[in-house]
Amino acid sequence: MSTGVWLVGARGSVATTAVVGAAAVAAGLTPPTGCVTESPDFAGTRLPELGDLVFGGHDVAGTGLAKRAEQLVRSGVVPAGLPGLVADDLAAADAEIRPGVHVPVDARDQATAAAALVSDIAAFRERRGLDRVVVINVASTEPPAGEHPAHRSLDALSAALASGTDVLPASSLYAYAALTAGCPYVDFTPSTGARLPALDELARRRGVPYAGRDGKTGETLLKSVLAPMFAQRALRVRAWSGTNLLGGGDGATLADPAAAAAKNASKSLVVGRTLGYPVDGEVHIDYVADLGDWKTAWDHVVFDGFLGARMSLQFTWQGCDSALAAPLVLDLVRLMALAHASGVAGPVSELAFFFKDPVGADGTTGGPGVDHALATQYETLRSWAASR
Amino acid sequence: MSTGVWLVGARGSVATTAVVGAAAVAAGLTPPTGCVTESPDFAGTRLPELGDLVFGGHDVAGTGLAKRAEQLVRSGVVPAGLPGLVADDLAAADAEIRPGVHVPVDARDQATAAAALVSDIAAFRERRGLDRVVVINVASTEPPAGEHPAHRSLDALSAALASGTDVLPASSLYAYAALTAGCPYVDFTPSTGARLPALDELARRRGVPYAGRDGKTGETLLKSVLAPMFAQRALRVRAWSGTNLLGGGDGATLADPAAAAAKNASKSLVVGRTLGYPVDGEVHIDYVADLGDWKTAWDHVVFDGFLGARMSLQFTWQGCDSALAAPLVLDLVRLMALAHASGVAGPVSELAFFFKDPVGADGTTGGPGVDHALATQYETLRSWAASR
Amino acid sequence: MSTGVWLVGARGSVATTAVVGAAAVAAGLTPPTGCVTESPDFAGTRLPELGDLVFGGHDVAGTGLAKRAEQLVRSGVVPAGLPGLVADDLAAADAEIRPGVHVPVDARDQATAAAALVSDIAAFRERRGLDRVVVINVASTEPPAGEHPAHRSLDALSAALASGTDVLPASSLYAYAALTAGCPYVDFTPSTGARLPALDELARRRGVPYAGRDGKTGETLLKSVLAPMFAQRALRVRAWSGTNLLGGGDGATLADPAAAAAKNASKSLVVGRTLGYPVDGEVHIDYVADLGDWKTAWDHVVFDGFLGARMSLQFTWQGCDSALAAPLVLDLVRLMALAHASGVAGPVSELAFFFKDPVGADGTTGGPGVDHALATQYETLRSWAASR
Amino acid sequence: MSTGVWLVGARGSVATTAVVGAAAVAAGLTPPTGCVTESPDFAGTRLPELGDLVFGGHDVAGTGLAKRAEQLVRSGVVPAGLPGLVADDLAAADAEIRPGVHVPVDARDQATAAAALVSDIAAFRERRGLDRVVVINVASTEPPAGEHPAHRSLDALSAALASGTDVLPASSLYAYAALTAGCPYVDFTPSTGARLPALDELARRRGVPYAGRDGKTGETLLKSVLAPMFAQRALRVRAWSGTNLLGGGDGATLADPAAAAAKNASKSLVVGRTLGYPVDGEVHIDYVADLGDWKTAWDHVVFDGFLGARMSLQFTWQGCDSALAAPLVLDLVRLMALAHASGVAGPVSELAFFFKDPVGADGTTGGPGVDHALATQYETLRSWAASR
Ligand SMILES: NC(=O)c1ccc[n+]([C@@H]2O[C@H](COP(=O)([O-])OP(=O)(O)OC[C@H]3O[C@@H](n4cnc5c(N)ncnc54)[C@H](O)[C@@H]3O)[C@@H](O)[C@H]2O)c1
Ligand SMILES: NC(=O)c1ccc[n+]([C@@H]2O[C@H](COP(=O)([O-])OP(=O)(O)OC[C@H]3O[C@@H](n4cnc5c(N)ncnc54)[C@H](O)[C@@H]3O)[C@@H](O)[C@H]2O)c1
Ligand SMILES: NC(=O)c1ccc[n+]([C@@H]2O[C@H](COP(=O)([O-])OP(=O)(O)OC[C@H]3O[C@@H](n4cnc5c(N)ncnc54)[C@H](O)[C@@H]3O)[C@@H](O)[C@H]2O)c1
Ligand SMILES: NC(=O)c1ccc[n+]([C@@H]2O[C@H](COP(=O)([O-])OP(=O)(O)OC[C@H]3O[C@@H](n4cnc5c(N)ncnc54)[C@H](O)[C@@H]3O)[C@@H](O)[C@H]2O)c1
Ligand code: NA
Ligand code: NA
Repeated sequence: MSTGVWLVGARGSVATTAVVGAAAVAAGLTPPTGCVTESPDFAGTRLPELGDLVFGGHDVAGTGLAKRAEQLVRSGVVPAGLPGLVADDLAAADAEIRPGVHVPVDARDQATAAAALVSDIAAFRERRGLDRVVVINVASTEPPAGEHPAHRSLDALSAALASGTDVLPASSLYAYAALTAGCPYVDFTPSTGARLPALDELARRRGVPYAGRDGKTGETLLKSVLAPMFAQRALRVRAWSGTNLLGGGDGATLADPAAAAAKNASKSLVVGRTLGYPVDGEVHIDYVADLGDWKTAWDHVVFDGFLGARMSLQFTWQGCDSALAAPLVLDLVRLMALAHASGVAGPVSELAFFFKDPVGADGTTGGPGVDHALATQYETLRSWAASR
Repeated sequence: MSTGVWLVGARGSVATTAVVGAAAVAAGLTPPTGCVTESPDFAGTRLPELGDLVFGGHDVAGTGLAKRAEQLVRSGVVPAGLPGLVADDLAAADAEIRPGVHVPVDARDQATAAAALVSDIAAFRERRGLDRVVVINVASTEPPAGEHPAHRSLDALSAALASGTDVLPASSLYAYAALTAGCPYVDFTPSTGARLPALDELARRRGVPYAGRDGKTGETLLKSVLAPMFAQRALRVRAWSGTNLLGGGDGATLADPAAAAAKNASKSLVVGRTLGYPVDGEVHIDYVADLGDWKTAWDHVVFDGFLGARMSLQFTWQGCDSALAAPLVLDLVRLMALAHASGVAGPVSELAFFFKDPVGADGTTGGPGVDHALATQYETLRSWAASR
Repeated sequence: MSTGVWLVGARGSVATTAVVGAAAVAAGLTPPTGCVTESPDFAGTRLPELGDLVFGGHDVAGTGLAKRAEQLVRSGVVPAGLPGLVADDLAAADAEIRPGVHVPVDARDQATAAAALVSDIAAFRERRGLDRVVVINVASTEPPAGEHPAHRSLDALSAALASGTDVLPASSLYAYAALTAGCPYVDFTPSTGARLPALDELARRRGVPYAGRDGKTGETLLKSVLAPMFAQRALRVRAWSGTNLLGGGDGATLADPAAAAAKNASKSLVVGRTLGYPVDGEVHIDYVADLGDWKTAWDHVVFDGFLGARMSLQFTWQGCDSALAAPLVLDLVRLMALAHASGVAGPVSELAFFFKDPVGADGTTGGPGVDHALATQYETLRSWAASR
Repeated sequence: MSTGVWLVGARGSVATTAVVGAAAVAAGLTPPTGCVTESPDFAGTRLPELGDLVFGGHDVAGTGLAKRAEQLVRSGVVPAGLPGLVADDLAAADAEIRPGVHVPVDARDQATAAAALVSDIAAFRERRGLDRVVVINVASTEPPAGEHPAHRSLDALSAALASGTDVLPASSLYAYAALTAGCPYVDFTPSTGARLPALDELARRRGVPYAGRDGKTGETLLKSVLAPMFAQRALRVRAWSGTNLLGGGDGATLADPAAAAAKNASKSLVVGRTLGYPVDGEVHIDYVADLGDWKTAWDHVVFDGFLGARMSLQFTWQGCDSALAAPLVLDLVRLMALAHASGVAGPVSELAFFFKDPVGADGTTGGPGVDHALATQYETLRSWAASR
C-alpha cells in the first residue's frame, strides 16, 4: 500500500521532524519511540509501513528542509549528525513542496486557489504513483474563524465560492481541497479545518474520512489521565489552573491572543467533560522565546477528599513539542490510510486518542462516540484498528 | 443487610476517620466525597448502606475514639465541631474495641491468642445481630516477615500452632482469626496478612473472600494512571524517582527502614509491571513529624520521545492520607460484604483498583486477573459489582 | 511610648490577623513568629512594645472583628479557640473602628471627607491618650489612579480640594488625612497612597515620616533573594515567568484586571532592577476562590551558565498571606513610631526590606537609597533601627 | 602574571569544561557567563587574565581531553563544534597531564608518591616559566577518611611518612604535595584534602594559601540565600528535605553511600548554621545514569508564620553541574593567585562564597570569619579582592 503524506505547513518544526524521523526509523538509525502504531498492540493491523510513506506538502515559507533540520539540531530536537544521514530523504520531500495559500488570498479568489491546491495534491499522487495521499494540517494555528452562513451546507459553500466570495479560513480551504481531491484529511492544529457542516457533508459525499483536531501532546494529555482518576476516585476537583511556557514558531503564533483563544478552547474541554461539572481555573499560554521547541507546562489542581479535606496536585511537564507531535503525525497518516482503504467516510471519532478536541461521529465537537478519558480512547483505537 | 466492620488498628487515624466519616455521611452532615461506591456507576449494585455499618475492632492502644477524633481536628483532617455531632457513634464504636495482640505474644501462645481474637469477633457479630462482619487491617505496618515452612499449607500451619510454635506475624494472626471466624478479610496495609499459601487455603476452605493489599492513595495512584499513559503513547521511561514526606503514626512507623521496606516493595510494582521493562530510580520515604497526617510526594520521571528527545515530568502530590484512605475502607467493607453475600471464596482479584499490591486470582502478588492500570482496574471493579 | 495603630481597612484579613496576633503574642499565647522586630538583631532598639499598641481604624464594611476572626479560623489562618481568648482585645479594637470613605465620595466633597477622617484619627489619639498614631493602609487594592495636575504640588492639591474638586483616589485621601493629622503613614498596599509629589511635600512640611509600598510577602520576597544570587554568580537570566493563585478578599479584588495591574507593576520591579537588564516573562494573578487566604505562587526561571548551558529553577510557594502580612504590619508600626519619635520627616527609604515597590529618599519609586536585594535591605534596616 | 592551573582530576567533566571554556572565552567565542571575577564588581582587582592561564594536572584515567570534550558535547554541556575551535588548547593541556596516584598506593610508599607529585608540579612550573601554579582538586569525591594521630601536627605527619606508613587519603596526599611545592591549593571537592591540622601547619610554614571545600553550585547555593531569608523574616523552619538526582561521573561516585556521606555532611551545614537551631529533614543523592551531567534537585521546606500558620516552599533546580562548576574553578584559580601574590598564608576564609563547607580562619569547618549567607559571603569576597 503506497501512501503519500501531504503536509500543510511542510516546512514547520513538526513536519520537518516527521520527515527526518520517518527516514531515520526506516533506515534503522533510531527506534520508533513515540510511534503508537509501532507498539505490539498494533502488530496485526493492516497499516502501511513507515518506510513506504512518500512526503510532500504546502507551505508559505521558503526555507529548505535540510536547513530546517539543522535548526532543529541546534535547538536539541534532532540529534547532531542525523540530518546528514537522511539528506536524500529530505531532498526528496523538499522537491515535493509547493507554495501554499494565505488567507486573504492575493488576487485569485478562493475557488481558484482551491483548484490550484487540488491540482498540486493530485499531481503528487500521480507523479509518485500513490494508492492514496493523506493530507495533514500542521501549519501555524489560525485565530478562530467567524461564522458564515456558507459554512452550513455544501450547497451554500459551493454557491459562495462559485460567486467569487471568500468565506473560508486557510485551514478550511486546505481541507476543502483535500476532500475535493478525494484525500483523507487530518487537522493536527486547533484551526477550523474540516470542522464545518459544509465540509463534513463534502467528506461524506466524496466517501473520504477526516479526523481531528489539535494533537494532544502535553498538558491536555496529562489531563486526559488525571481527570478520570479524580472522577473514578470520587474526589471533587475545585480548581484546575495551568500555565504553559513555550517558544518556537508555535509559541510565537500563540503569543497572539486570538490564536491562543483557539488553543485554549481545545485545552479546556477534557476536564469539564470528564468530571461532569464546571471547574474553576484559568489556562495561560506564554511565549518565552528562549525555550525554543521546548515547552514547560505547570498545572495546579485543588481537590477535596473525605470530610472536605483540601488537597492539591501539581505537575510540571517539560516536553519537546515537535518530538511529541511528529510520531503522532505518522500514526495518523497510517491510520487514516487504513480508514480510507477500508471505506470509512466522514469523521473518524475512533481516533479521539490523538486529539484535544476530538470530532464526534456526527462531525461536531464532543458529538457521539467521544470520551475524553485516554484509557477509553486507547481501547477504542486499538479495537477499531484491529477490526479494519 | 446488616454489616459489621471490624477494624484491626481501630484507634488509628484511618480507622477513626472512617468511623467519624461514616456517621457524618449517614447523618447528612457531609457529602460522601472520596467514596467510590457512592458514585452513580455503582447505583444499581446490592451494597449495604453506609448508615447500616456497625463498627468495632482490635487495637493495642488505649486512647478513646473521641480523643483521637479531636487530635484529627487539630491536624486538619476532621472539620472542627464534627466529632461533637457524632459523639454517640464514636462512643458506640469505642465500646466495641477490644485489646489486640502484639507479636511476639506475651505468655499465651499464638493458638490461644488467635482463639481470643476469634471469640471477640464472633461475640461482636452475635451481640449486634449482624449478618456478617468484614475484618479490615488498618494497623501499623509491620516489617516484612521471614518465610517459614508452616506458611506453605494449612496443615503445616495448623500443626505448628497446635504444637505451641509461634510462626505468624501479627497481621497474619488477625487474618487467621478472621477467616477462622468465617469473616471476609481485607489487608489495607502492606503487612503480610492473608498473603500466605496457608491462609489462602483457609479462606477457600471456609468459603470466605479476602482482598488486599496496601491501600493505593497517593504516589502509587498517580503511577497507575501515568505509567499506562507513557506505555500507550510509546514513550520510553528512563527513570522514575520518588520522595515521600509524611508525619503521623504511619510516618513514624515507616521511619523504621524495615517497615519502609514492605511499603517500598508494594510501591515499586506498578511501573515495572505496566511498562514491561525495568525502570531506574529510587523511592524514599522520609518521616517529617511536622507534616502530621499530610503527605507530600514528589516524583520525577525522565523519558524519551521520538529521535531520543529527553523530556521529564514532575509531580507534587499533597494529600491527607487518612482522608484518602478512610472512604476506601468503607468501600472495601461494602464490596466485601457483597462478595461474601454472593458466595465468593478466596482472593478477590477484581478489587485491584484499591491496592498497591493487588492479590491475583491464585492468591499471589501479580497473579492472574491483575492489571496495574487504574482505568482497567476500574472497569473490572464496576462490572464485577454490577454482576453480583 | 504609647502608640496607636490606625488601620485603613480595619475589618480586612490582614488587619484582623494583626489585631488577634498582637493580643495573642502580648498575652504569651503564641511566639512572635514572623515579627522581624522581635528578633535578637533588634534587641537594643527603642521600639514600642507589642503589648502597648492600641488599635482602631477605618473600614467601609460592617462585619465585627470577632466574626471576622472566626472566619479566619475556618480558613485556617487563626488557630481554633484563639479568638475567644482575645475577645476583649477584639471588642476594644472594634469599638474604635469608624466608617471609611469610598471614592467617589457620596454627597460630601473630598475636603469635607478628609476633615472627617482627620477628626476620627485625632479623636482616637486624644481619647486613648496616645503619644502618636501610626496610620497604615491595609484596605483593598485600588486600580491605578490617573494622573492629575493637582497631584504635582501641595499648593495645587490644596487649591483643588478647596474648590470642591475631587482629585484623589481613596488611598491618597487617607494618606492626606493621616499626614494632615500629623501621623506617620504606611502604604502596605500597591495603591497610590502617599506616592504623590503633593503628599510627599505635605509629609515633609508637617515633619512626619511615611513609608511604602505594597508589603513583600511571597513571590517578590523570593525574587529579592534569588535575583541577587543569579547576579552575584554571573548567571544570565533569560526569562522569569510567574503564576499566582489566590482566593480571599485580596484575590477577589485582584480578579479585576485594573487592580491586578497595580500589583503587577510592583511585582516586576525587583528582577529587572537587580539584574540590570530586561528579562522576558509574564506574571499572572488568578483568582481561585477555593484557595481562601492561601496563595500558591509558581515561578519558572530560565538562565544560562558557562558556555551557554541552559538551566532552570522553579519554585512553588504556598503561603498564608494574612499570616505573612500581619506581623510585618506590626513591625512597620513599631518602626514608624521610632522614626516619628526620632524626628524623621518624609519618605523612610530604609524600610525597603518590607516592600515590593520601596519609596526612595526623594519620594519616588526606585529613588536614591533603594536596593532591591533583601540582604542589603535587611542590613540597612538593622543599622537604621540601631542608630535611632 | 603568568599563572599555572594544576588540575587534580584533569580529565574529569569539570576540569575539561574549565579548559575548553577558558580557551573559548579567551578567544572571544563565548561570553564569560558564570565567571564571578569577570563581573564589574571585580573590575579594578589585580587578577591574572583568563587568557594567561596555563593548564596541566594529574589524573588516573587515560582518555584524552579532545575525546572528553566530545563526550561533553554529546551530553549537552559543551556546544557542538566548540572543541574543534579550541583543539590546540586542549592538546596543549593534554600534554601537561601526568599520571596521578591511587590510595592505597601500589608498591611505592606515600612519601615516594608525594615526591613524584611534587616533582611533576615543579617541572610544569619551570618548563612553562610560570610565576606560580595553583593546584585545584576536582577529582572524584572520596569516602570520608578515618582520623589518624599523624593528622594532628606536621611533625607527626612527617614522622609517619618518613617511616613508610601510609596515613593520608589521596586528596590529602595531593594537598601535601601542592603545599610542599609552594603552591596555593584549593579543594573543590568534599574530600579531606588540606582540611587536616598537619596540612594547615604546612601551609602556614610554607607561606602558601589554601581554600575550600566543595564547590557550591546547586541545592546548597539556593539554601545559602533562602535560609537567610527565613531567618531575616523571623519565619520558623520546621523541616528542610532534599532529593538530588544526578548522573555523570560524579553521580556514579556518589552512588557509593560512603562517598555520598562526605557530600551530605557538606550540604547540611548551611541551614543549621544560618538558622541557629536544628532543622528536621533528610537529603538524598540518587544516581540516575540517564541524567548525565545534568542534576535535578528538589527541596521541600516546611515553615511556620504568625500564629503558627503552616506554609511551604518547594524548588526544583535543573542545572548542568560542570557548567556551573567550571567558571568557579577559574575564579578560584585567579583569586588564589592574587592571594599568593599578596602574601596570604594558610586558610583563605574570605572565599567562603564558593564553598559548601568553607574553611574558617583557623583552618576548621565553620571557624572564625565564616558566615553561610551568600550575600554576606559575596560582600566579604568583593572587599577582600578589592583590597589586595
Ligand atoms: N507540537 C505539538 O506538540 C503540537 C500539538 C498540537 C498542535 N500542534 C500544532 O501544529 C502546528 C505546527 O506546529 P509547529 O511547531 O510545527 O509550528 P511552526 O511554526 O514550526 O510551523 C508552522 C508552519 O506552517 C507554515 N504556514 C503558516 N501559514 C501557512 C499557510 N497558510 N499555508 C501553508 N503553510 C503555512 C509556516 O510557514 C510554518 O512552516 C501548530 O498549529 C501547532 O499548534 C502542535
Ligand atoms: N492512609 C493511607 O493513605 C494509607 C494507605 C495505604 C496503607 N495505609 C496503612 O494503613 C495503616 C494505618 O495507618 P494510620 O495512618 O491509621 O496509622 P496509625 O499509626 O494512626 O494507626 C495504626 C493503629 O494500629 C494500632 N496497632 C499497632 N499495632 C497493632 C496490633 N498489633 N494490633 C492492633 N492494633 C495495632 C496502633 O495502636 C494504632 O492505633 C498503616 O499500616 C498504613 O501503612 C494507609
Ligand atoms: N496579605 C499579604 O500578603 C499582602 C501583601 C501585600 C499587600 N497586601 C495588601 O493588603 C490589603 C489587604 O489585604 P486583605 O487580604 O486584608 O484584604 P481584605 O479584602 O480581606 O480586606 C480589605 C479591607 O479593606 C476594606 N476596604 C475596602 N475599601 C475601603 C475603603 N475605601 N476604605 C476603608 N476600607 C476599605 C474592605 O472592606 C476590607 O475589610 C490588600 O490591598 C492587599 O493587596 C497584602
Ligand atoms: N560539578 C559540580 O557542580 C561540583 C560541585 C561541587 C563539587 N564537585 C566535585 O568536583 C569533582 C569532579 O566532578 P566531575 O563531575 O568532574 O567528576 P568526573 O567523575 O567527571 O571527574 C573526576 C576525575 O577525577 C579523576 N580521578 C579519580 N581519582 C583520582 C585520583 N586518585 N587522582 C587523580 N585523579 C583522579 C577521574 O579519573 C576523573 O577524570 C567531584 O568530586 C565533585 O563532587 C563538583
Ligand atoms: Na489572571
Ligand atoms: Na541514595
